[in-house]
Amino acid sequence: MANDLEKTPVAVLGLGAMGQALATAFLKAGHPTTIWNRSPGKDDELIARGAVRATGAAEAVRAAELVVICVVDHHAATAVLDSVAEDLPGRVLVNLTSDTPERARKTGAWAQEHGIDYLDGSIMVPVDLVGRPPALIFYSGPRTAYDRHETALKALGGKPAHLGEDQGLAAVYDLALLDYFYGSISGLLHAYALAGADGVRAADLAPYLDTITAFMPSLAAEAAQHVDAGSHPGEAANLGMMASGVGHILEWAEHRGLDVSTLRPIKEVYDRTVALGHAAESWTSTIEVVRGNADSARGDRAGQTL
Amino acid sequence: MANDLEKTPVAVLGLGAMGQALATAFLKAGHPTTIWNRSPGKDDELIARGAVRATGAAEAVRAAELVVICVVDHHAATAVLDSVAEDLPGRVLVNLTSDTPERARKTGAWAQEHGIDYLDGSIMVPVDLVGRPPALIFYSGPRTAYDRHETALKALGGKPAHLGEDQGLAAVYDLALLDYFYGSISGLLHAYALAGADGVRAADLAPYLDTITAFMPSLAAEAAQHVDAGSHPGEAANLGMMASGVGHILEWAEHRGLDVSTLRPIKEVYDRTVALGHAAESWTSTIEVVRGNADSARGDRAGQTL
Repeated sequence: MANDLEKTPVAVLGLGAMGQALATAFLKAGHPTTIWNRSPGKDDELIARGAVRATGAAEAVRAAELVVICVVDHHAATAVLDSVAEDLPGRVLVNLTSDTPERARKTGAWAQEHGIDYLDGSIMVPVDLVGRPPALIFYSGPRTAYDRHETALKALGGKPAHLGEDQGLAAVYDLALLDYFYGSISGLLHAYALAGADGVRAADLAPYLDTITAFMPSLAAEAAQHVDAGSHPGEAANLGMMASGVGHILEWAEHRGLDVSTLRPIKEVYDRTVALGHAAESWTSTIEVVRGNADSARGDRAGQTL
Repeated sequence: MANDLEKTPVAVLGLGAMGQALATAFLKAGHPTTIWNRSPGKDDELIARGAVRATGAAEAVRAAELVVICVVDHHAATAVLDSVAEDLPGRVLVNLTSDTPERARKTGAWAQEHGIDYLDGSIMVPVDLVGRPPALIFYSGPRTAYDRHETALKALGGKPAHLGEDQGLAAVYDLALLDYFYGSISGLLHAYALAGADGVRAADLAPYLDTITAFMPSLAAEAAQHVDAGSHPGEAANLGMMASGVGHILEWAEHRGLDVSTLRPIKEVYDRTVALGHAAESWTSTIEVVRGNADSARGDRAGQTL
């Protein structure tokens, strides 16, 4: 058993499925762990594992050097944090409640006003992987606060990543990865439907999907170079050819009577990029269209909070 | 050097970039290789490697047991094949020209009328990977014809896959894999644009994409089970939660001024599936919407040719 005396005392506020997993991970790593939930009755197993039940959020905070909050939404988090604002200074607050970048920044500003070291975080794995070595958790906020508790945070997931001082970054990375995820699984389901329309079982197609999937890391790295450089040199397969390629899939899917509401706009983004004169460039030049008016929106960052 | 006497004599019709790569792969594997192209002047390097130049398509066909055609489109392929219809019986014809499933089936019917053993194929790798061990090439058509020349076909790509007797299958699998591919890279670019709107470089996001990519094979296998079984048991993350999740990304992308023409319909497919009563099921139940009226379209297969 780990020596508790050397371990950072922690508090976990919020004992939903994720909060319970976080507290369990801390306990397994030997951290003195104080727990609190707005409503009672979710902590029997944690108490049996050695957790200390606090009668209020402030009591839990005062017992800890590292305070982790994970509740249902920003509104709930704000209510709890406001109630313990005077107890948090001198400790590090980590908010793992899912939220938008701007609300994370707003909480960051609130924390600064109150002299609280604040990290915003995003858990990138399902609840059953929390605490495991491959579990990725994003953190953003003061580097010094992260460094002070990196060892303890590794109990929650073996792959913690500090993304920068801007408290919004964990949510930005979270949203961007999910954007990629939803696009990928949308394409996956559409592929199954397309194959199925010709009587091919999904299980027969599935093994060949790895041909695409295995290619994605190198393709993503190359695309990143193009995007960051703002230069999209055409390769063997240029945008014009790929616009034609996706057009063939669209035609076939329509012919088979599939819903093409997700596929047609992909073709249209290619066509609009071709119309801008990028046909001989790489497909990554579609970012000129996908960006929309993001450049002008960026200037408004300080305005409306989402 | 391989013993040419043991190797199947082959012909390659069409010497575009892909045709040249195919001929080169046969030559490297030691096959007596006769080549032909409609217009001259694309074969100097191949001749230097030992290929025999035919003065006409029929001459090339007559020199071979295995005839591979790879030209610009179905129209070009049909013109060449019609001109050699009398020379093909007794040989195996492999058509690697990109085409729709129905046109492959139409060519299959034409081949049957003429007593020609015909395989339709789809090359699933870029031209520079042709002939390499990991190169995947799909074939469909008579199994006996495939078995007779599997060894020779392995010269073109180390991973040949015979998908079934229906000549349209190679194109079906091809289109379905590309459907998945275009969905994935559409999500990828959108993720880069979303991150970029908050000042995050694509190269900083790219390493974390592997978290999603590495998860895809097991997710695809599980999704295939659901799709084939027509049963979509809800897991920790059910459709309703995922509809909400993709909604958050959509809101943020709109807030940042991005083009959401590809993202909004993904959310709408989730919403339409929720409206059908599947909120507590797996996200794979979206296939009920994605299929559209594919079931009824399937009945019309013998009708219009695309």
